[in-house]
Amino acid sequence: MTNTAPPPHAALQQAARAWFEALRDALCTAFETIEDDLPGERQAGRPAGRFVRSPWQRPTEDGAPGGGGVISLLKGRVFEKVGVNVSTVFGSFSPEFRRQIPGAAEDPRFWASGISLVAHMCNPHVPAAHFNTRMLVTSRGWFGGGGDLTPLRPDSEAAIEDAADLQAAFRAACDRHDPACHPRYREWCDRYFYLPHRGEARGAGGIFFDEHFSGDAAADLAFVQDVGRAFLDAFPRIVRRRMGEAWTPEEREALLIKRGRYVEFNLLYDRGTLFGLKTGGNVDAILMSMPPEVRWP
Amino acid sequence: MTNTAPPPHAALQQAARAWFEALRDALCTAFETIEDDLPGERQAGRPAGRFVRSPWQRPTEDGAPGGGGVISLLKGRVFEKVGVNVSTVFGSFSPEFRRQIPGAAEDPRFWASGISLVAHMCNPHVPAAHFNTRMLVTSRGWFGGGGDLTPLRPDSEAAIEDAADLQAAFRAACDRHDPACHPRYREWCDRYFYLPHRGEARGAGGIFFDEHFSGDAAADLAFVQDVGRAFLDAFPRIVRRRMGEAWTPEEREALLIKRGRYVEFNLLYDRGTLFGLKTGGNVDAILMSMPPEVRWP
Repeated sequence: MTNTAPPPHAALQQAARAWFEALRDALCTAFETIEDDLPGERQAGRPAGRFVRSPWQRPTEDGAPGGGGVISLLKGRVFEKVGVNVSTVFGSFSPEFRRQIPGAAEDPRFWASGISLVAHMCNPHVPAAHFNTRMLVTSRGWFGGGGDLTPLRPDSEAAIEDAADLQAAFRAACDRHDPACHPRYREWCDRYFYLPHRGEARGAGGIFFDEHFSGDAAADLAFVQDVGRAFLDAFPRIVRRRMGEAWTPEEREALLIKRGRYVEFNLLYDRGTLFGLKTGGNVDAILMSMPPEVRWP
Repeated sequence: MTNTAPPPHAALQQAARAWFEALRDALCTAFETIEDDLPGERQAGRPAGRFVRSPWQRPTEDGAPGGGGVISLLKGRVFEKVGVNVSTVFGSFSPEFRRQIPGAAEDPRFWASGISLVAHMCNPHVPAAHFNTRMLVTSRGWFGGGGDLTPLRPDSEAAIEDAADLQAAFRAACDRHDPACHPRYREWCDRYFYLPHRGEARGAGGIFFDEHFSGDAAADLAFVQDVGRAFLDAFPRIVRRRMGEAWTPEEREALLIKRGRYVEFNLLYDRGTLFGLKTGGNVDAILMSMPPEVRWP
């Protein structure tokens, strides 16, 4: 353990945590309002969904405090299953993981806070969405995150319009801070959300970033807040645009098969999922991302 | 590349391949007969399922012959989805995999033939089953394989009876060759089919073995044939014992959730699945193991 000054992120811990929780509240409110606003002729008889919150604690080997989180889960008539997890965890990385984490070789202690969201939709015309942002503090500090859409048919006019809408929101958020970010983070998303065994993209694009540190931690928190506001602005608009459209049983069946690719990606390749499961993370919070109903015919 | 004599398995290639294909035929016939024999009051109106065979070729980088296989897939009224894949493939391991495969560091050429089966059942009272056996030839030679049951409720009296039935058949097969095998292979199965992130066994037991070489390759082929006959004898009997039982919508829902654990195991931990997908194996043949319908509520 070397004696180095803590990174500037250490002073932002409570602000970051408060932001992630406030964004969670705003997203949950937006989604519940969408559940209320579904036009009456669709999903007749199904009540508007409401979030149920389940707090969890991170177990530690020595029983010391390790933080925890809250899963907010809604199963509704627009959102077939949407989970929003906020967590703030801290402790020490075990020796096997110290080399994989920036700054942990010098000092194994860590603090991490973030928000993670996955939405699987009833209507095959509404794209599934993923969004997350987080702040990590070891002997270094950085932000990571991203968001993207997974439409049933990425080549359709509607899916292209929706993806462009979210991408424009992310671009505007990035450009307010550093115009060099968006092209990199957009391309990183395309590269990351890819299933090599099928030669297929998982989704229709978005942004992905990690180890984001501009040199000004407070400015980086503001950047991550703008990315969150962009998602909060664009995704509910996209859902509202499509949720009234009719669908066929064949489209529903195709959606359930498409969701299989989502499962394959998350369990075979997603770094967050694999790292979380291998480090004894909260299984319910990590696998909240799994679709509610899936088919491999 | 060193000049060593080929392992004795090289002389058994055609016999091994012929056995795996004959066992496939016998299993397919047994399962189609079960489809015919389902008592009339169950799954009324659904026709008896029949296997559909799809041949595939293994692509190679230089267009040289690489072998291939045949997937036999049945979607029926007892077997919701059962796939039986036989394959015989050959070529050279790429440098990154040579160190992982016994005998491949000395000479990258390989030949492999095998049968692999996964059965997901309509009736929650009938256990899902997996079975596979294979012969590998590099500069060394060996057999691998195994089989096990995944009942919905492993602690139920019925599931314990079924697991004991299959286990007794495997034990008898093993004991005819080497009484030391069965305890090891049974324990290996329990250790292997385990989900550490959930602290749960995948199934209710069976056998698992790899790098099996007694010193007598022909005797080992006879061992693997007896293991195959044991599965062919026991699993159809277990299916017939349970297939007429009634089930509730709640049991069906529980089955779909239990299948999620099967997906998690296969995509997170199964060596065959991960190795196959990372080495450009046939995706349809590898993911034939995925359940037809799954829920993560």
